[in-house]
Amino acid sequence: MNDGMNNNDKRGLRAAIGARGLIGFVVCFLLLGGQSFAQGKFNVNPKTAAEAIDSLVWANRILAVEEIFDYAGHVSVRNPENPNTFFIARSLAPESVTRADILEVDLEGNVVTKTAMRPYAERIIHARMLAARPDMNAVIHSHPLPLIMFSVSDVPLRPVAHSAGSINPEGVPVYDEYDFKSPGSTGMLVTTKEEGDRLARKLGKGKAVLMRGHGFAAVGRSIPDMVLTSIGLRNSALIQLGAIQLGGKIKYMTPEESGTQRVSAGADLAMERSWNAYVQRVKKEMPDMR
Amino acid sequence: MNDGMNNNDKRGLRAAIGARGLIGFVVCFLLLGGQSFAQGKFNVNPKTAAEAIDSLVWANRILAVEEIFDYAGHVSVRNPENPNTFFIARSLAPESVTRADILEVDLEGNVVTKTAMRPYAERIIHARMLAARPDMNAVIHSHPLPLIMFSVSDVPLRPVAHSAGSINPEGVPVYDEYDFKSPGSTGMLVTTKEEGDRLARKLGKGKAVLMRGHGFAAVGRSIPDMVLTSIGLRNSALIQLGAIQLGGKIKYMTPEESGTQRVSAGADLAMERSWNAYVQRVKKEMPDMR
Amino acid sequence: MNDGMNNNDKRGLRAAIGARGLIGFVVCFLLLGGQSFAQGKFNVNPKTAAEAIDSLVWANRILAVEEIFDYAGHVSVRNPENPNTFFIARSLAPESVTRADILEVDLEGNVVTKTAMRPYAERIIHARMLAARPDMNAVIHSHPLPLIMFSVSDVPLRPVAHSAGSINPEGVPVYDEYDFKSPGSTGMLVTTKEEGDRLARKLGKGKAVLMRGHGFAAVGRSIPDMVLTSIGLRNSALIQLGAIQLGGKIKYMTPEESGTQRVSAGADLAMERSWNAYVQRVKKEMPDMR
Amino acid sequence: MNDGMNNNDKRGLRAAIGARGLIGFVVCFLLLGGQSFAQGKFNVNPKTAAEAIDSLVWANRILAVEEIFDYAGHVSVRNPENPNTFFIARSLAPESVTRADILEVDLEGNVVTKTAMRPYAERIIHARMLAARPDMNAVIHSHPLPLIMFSVSDVPLRPVAHSAGSINPEGVPVYDEYDFKSPGSTGMLVTTKEEGDRLARKLGKGKAVLMRGHGFAAVGRSIPDMVLTSIGLRNSALIQLGAIQLGGKIKYMTPEESGTQRVSAGADLAMERSWNAYVQRVKKEMPDMR
Repeated sequence: MNDGMNNNDKRGLRAAIGARGLIGFVVCFLLLGGQSFAQGKFNVNPKTAAEAIDSLVWANRILAVEEIFDYAGHVSVRNPENPNTFFIARSLAPESVTRADILEVDLEGNVVTKTAMRPYAERIIHARMLAARPDMNAVIHSHPLPLIMFSVSDVPLRPVAHSAGSINPEGVPVYDEYDFKSPGSTGMLVTTKEEGDRLARKLGKGKAVLMRGHGFAAVGRSIPDMVLTSIGLRNSALIQLGAIQLGGKIKYMTPEESGTQRVSAGADLAMERSWNAYVQRVKKEMPDMR
Repeated sequence: MNDGMNNNDKRGLRAAIGARGLIGFVVCFLLLGGQSFAQGKFNVNPKTAAEAIDSLVWANRILAVEEIFDYAGHVSVRNPENPNTFFIARSLAPESVTRADILEVDLEGNVVTKTAMRPYAERIIHARMLAARPDMNAVIHSHPLPLIMFSVSDVPLRPVAHSAGSINPEGVPVYDEYDFKSPGSTGMLVTTKEEGDRLARKLGKGKAVLMRGHGFAAVGRSIPDMVLTSIGLRNSALIQLGAIQLGGKIKYMTPEESGTQRVSAGADLAMERSWNAYVQRVKKEMPDMR
Repeated sequence: MNDGMNNNDKRGLRAAIGARGLIGFVVCFLLLGGQSFAQGKFNVNPKTAAEAIDSLVWANRILAVEEIFDYAGHVSVRNPENPNTFFIARSLAPESVTRADILEVDLEGNVVTKTAMRPYAERIIHARMLAARPDMNAVIHSHPLPLIMFSVSDVPLRPVAHSAGSINPEGVPVYDEYDFKSPGSTGMLVTTKEEGDRLARKLGKGKAVLMRGHGFAAVGRSIPDMVLTSIGLRNSALIQLGAIQLGGKIKYMTPEESGTQRVSAGADLAMERSWNAYVQRVKKEMPDMR
Repeated sequence: MNDGMNNNDKRGLRAAIGARGLIGFVVCFLLLGGQSFAQGKFNVNPKTAAEAIDSLVWANRILAVEEIFDYAGHVSVRNPENPNTFFIARSLAPESVTRADILEVDLEGNVVTKTAMRPYAERIIHARMLAARPDMNAVIHSHPLPLIMFSVSDVPLRPVAHSAGSINPEGVPVYDEYDFKSPGSTGMLVTTKEEGDRLARKLGKGKAVLMRGHGFAAVGRSIPDMVLTSIGLRNSALIQLGAIQLGGKIKYMTPEESGTQRVSAGADLAMERSWNAYVQRVKKEMPDMR
C-alpha cells in the first residue's frame, strides 16, 4: 500500500514515460506529491509508534473534513511502544497537521519530545483520560456547535439512532466543574492535572463527555473507533434536535439496542468501510495528502 | 500580490510551453474528451445487464453528491436479463463505486457472482423488496439525518410538496420490528430473510418505508425514479420540519394532489431533466466520472 | 468589457507570447475558453435582444450557484426589441443553460423560435406575468425549500430585514387555486393560460407570490432586480424562520421601512456590487463561463 | 470509464510534454511559489500602513470564506501611521478585495485618497466607531443571517459558549434608531455622521452591536481580534438558537466566565492558531491569494 505513490501518481508516471521531459516530470513529482506516507491504511491495532502516528495524522485531516474540527480541537493516540506516553500534534489547526508536527507527551502532560514546538494548552485532557482508561487508546477534544448546544441545556443527549451506539443510555454526562479560583486555572479551559482528572471522572466508563459551554471529549479503543464515535455523536445531536423540533413523542433507543455486542460486531465491518471513505474524501479535499 | 499569475495563468503557461500545433491539439482533445463510458445516459428501461450496471454506478455517485448517502447505504437494480437476480455494489462507500465493484445477487440474498469481494450485510433488504414487488426494479437503503428524525418521532412524514408525490397520503410507514432474540439477528440491522420480509411487508404497496432509529428504504420503477423519490423524500422531510417550526397550521397535500396520474406524467419529463443535471454535477465533483 | 476574453485569458495570453507553441496555445484557447461572450456585464436596461439574452444566461447560472435553483425552475426576460415576446431557456437545468438554449416565446406561451427544442411546461407563468405587468421585465419561477415551507403554512412571509424590501408589508400572497378538474390541467403545475392568469392576479401589484406546496414566482424591473429579489426572499424566509424559533416577540419592518424610495435608491448601487460579486462566483464555480 | 486518464494524469501529461529539465523546474517553481506578498502573516500590532493594509486584505478574504460576508459588508483598520484615518476597501464585494482597492478615509468619513473609486455608503460606521473608541483599531459591519435573526427578536443574544467571550453578559445591544425623516437619511442604512454617532453610542464599551433588521457592527483591538469576534458572535448565535430549540433550561455564561482576563490571555494563543488556519483556507479557496 505504501510505496510513496498513490494510483494517480502511478498513472501520471506511466503517461510521462515515452514522452520527453522526464526530468521535468520528476521535479514536478517531487514538488507536488513525493510523500513516503502510508495512505490512510485502516488500522485498529498499530504495533509501532510510526503506524500510530500515521493514523493520527489521518484522523486530524478526516475530522477536519467532516467538520468535527473547526480550526481548533485535537486528537491523540497512545504510543503502542510505551503505554505511558501518547502522540498529539503541536499547537496547530488539525487540518494542517503532518507527521512533522507530532509530539510525544506523558500521562502527566509533560512533552517528552525534545523540541521548541508549542504544545496544545489542553493536552492534559488526553493525558488524564488515557491514564484513567487503560482500555482506551485514542482521545478527542473539540467544539462542534451541535454538541455545545446540548452542553448548555438540561435536555440530555440520549441515544436515538443506530449509528450512535457510544452514547450512554441515560445520556452523555456534562462536565461543569470549571475552576475560577486556583492560581493556575485558565477559566473554562481544562489545563491542570486536577481539572483533567475531574473531567476523566465525569467521563466514567462511557465513551463521551460534554463540557458545558465549551465542547466535548471522547475516547476510543482505536483511532477509527474514536473517529466514528465523534461523527456519530455530532450526527446524533442533530437527529435529536430535529426530532424535538417535530414536536411529537420521541422513541429513544433502549439500553439493549444501544449496548448490544451484536451491534458492535457489525460496527467493526462498517468502521473499515467508513474509514476508507473518509480517507478518500481527505485525498480529494487536501492535495497534500494524495 | 503573488507572482503575478493565478491558476489559470499557470495552466495557460503550461499549455503554451508544451504544445506545438497539432500535437497540442491532440493533447487537448485527449484531455477534454474521448470517453468510452456511457456518460450517465438517462435510461428508465435498460435492456441489458450492462446498461443496468452503468445506471447503477451513476446512481451511487449521484446519491453521494446529493448527500442521500453519507459513506454508507446502497442501491440496487433488477437484472433486465433475469428478473430473479439484481445488481448491487460490494461493501464499499457509494461515492467510490465503479463497474468493477458490482455483484449479482439472487432474491434470497445469495451472491451469484464468483468473487472473493465482500457484499453488504444488508443486501437482503434489496432481495426481499424486489421479490415482494415485481412492479419495481430499483431499491435504496440509506440514512439521511432528516429521515432518521421522522423515524423516531410519532409525527408522520406526510406529503406536503409537489416534488414528493411518492409519499403515502397517510404518511410513510415506520418499520420497528427489529429482532434482538434470534441467534442470527444483528440487532438494528436488517440481515436475515425474515427481517427482510417484515420490512417489505411494512413497505406494502407504497414506495418508501422509514426504519426506526436507522434510516429508510425505498423502491422505484427504474433507477431514475428511485433516485428522484429518495431526493424528494429527504427534501419533503426538511420542508415539513421547517413548516412545523413556523408554528402555524400546515396544509398537507390531498390524496388527489399527491396521487394523480397527471402529476406522474409530468414527472417523467422532469425526471429526465433532473437526471441529466445530476449527472453533470457528478462529472463536476468527481473527476474519475468525466 | 467584451472582447471575448476575460482578465485571466489576457494574462495567460501575455504569458504565452514570447514562448513557443503559440499555435498550440491558440488551439487550447479556442477549446477551453473562446467565448465571444459578454462576461456578465451589469445591465439593468438592455437595448437589444442579444444583450438581454446574455444577462439571462448569467441569471440562470447565478441563481444556480446561489441555490435558488435546484436543477429545476426557470427565468425569463422581456425582449427589448419586442415587448410582446420574451426569452427563456429550453427545458434544461438552469446550471447548464447557454445562449444556444434560449427560445423566444410570446405572451400566450407560444414558442416563436423555429426549433425542435422542448420548452418548459410552465413557461405560461412567465408569459402571463409579463402580460399582466408591463412595468416588469424579468420573471422567475423556482422551488427553494425555505419558500415552500412558508407556502404550506398559514404564517405569512413578512418583511423583516432590510435586504427584502420587495416583500409586501402584509405578507407575500399564496396562490392556492390549482385546477384538478379541467382536461388540460396538470394538477399542481401551472401550464394553462387560465392558470397563468390566476397566478398573475394573485401576484397583483407586488413582486412575489408563493405557490402552495410547490414554490414561488417573482418579477423584477430588470434581470438584476429579479435576481436580488429572489435571493432576498429566500434569505428573508430563513431569517423569519429563525426569529420565530427564538420564541420571543418579533419586530417586523413597517411599511415605511420596507417601501421607501430611499431604500430602493440605495439598492441600485448595492445591486451592481452584488451582481458583480455573483458573476465572479459563477466564474469560479463554472469553468465554462470564464 | 473514460479515456483512461483523470485530471492528475492530464496535468502530468501537460507537464511532461512541455518540460525540459531546468525550464520545467523553473516553470514549476513559478507555478508553485515565489510570491512577493505578505502571506497573511499574523500581526496584531502593525507598525506601518502597508502592514495594516496587508492584514485588511486578508481579513476581507477570511470573512468571505467563513461566510460572515455574503457579497456585502466591510472591514476597516486604523492607520498605524495616523490614528485619525483608517483603511477600507472601495465599494466592492469583500471576496474580491485586493491591495489596489484600499482607500484611506478620515474619522468624518471623508475619503483622503485621491481617487475616482467609489467608497462604501456606510463607511461612516467605521469612522465614528474608531473616533469613539481609541482603544480599538478594527471595525466590521456585515449581515450574517443568524445575527439578523436576533436583531429582530426581543430574545437577547447572550454569552453561552467559551468562544464568544466578547458578548456582553447582559446581551448584545440592539440599535434601532433609524432615521426616516432627515433629508440626508437613507432609511435603514447608517450613512450620516449623526447616525454613525448614535450607533457608536449604542455599542458603548462593548465589542458588538446588532442593527435591527439589518446586521451587526463590531470592533477589535486588532484585525485578528475583530475577525475572531465576528466568527464567535455568529457561532454563538447558532448555539443559542439551537439550545433554545431543545426546549430545556439553558445555562448561560456568568459574567465571571465571559469576562475574565484569564480567558482573554488564553485567547491570544488561540487567535494566532486560528488566524493561520483561516489564512490556509483562503489560500485553498482563492487561487489569487496563493
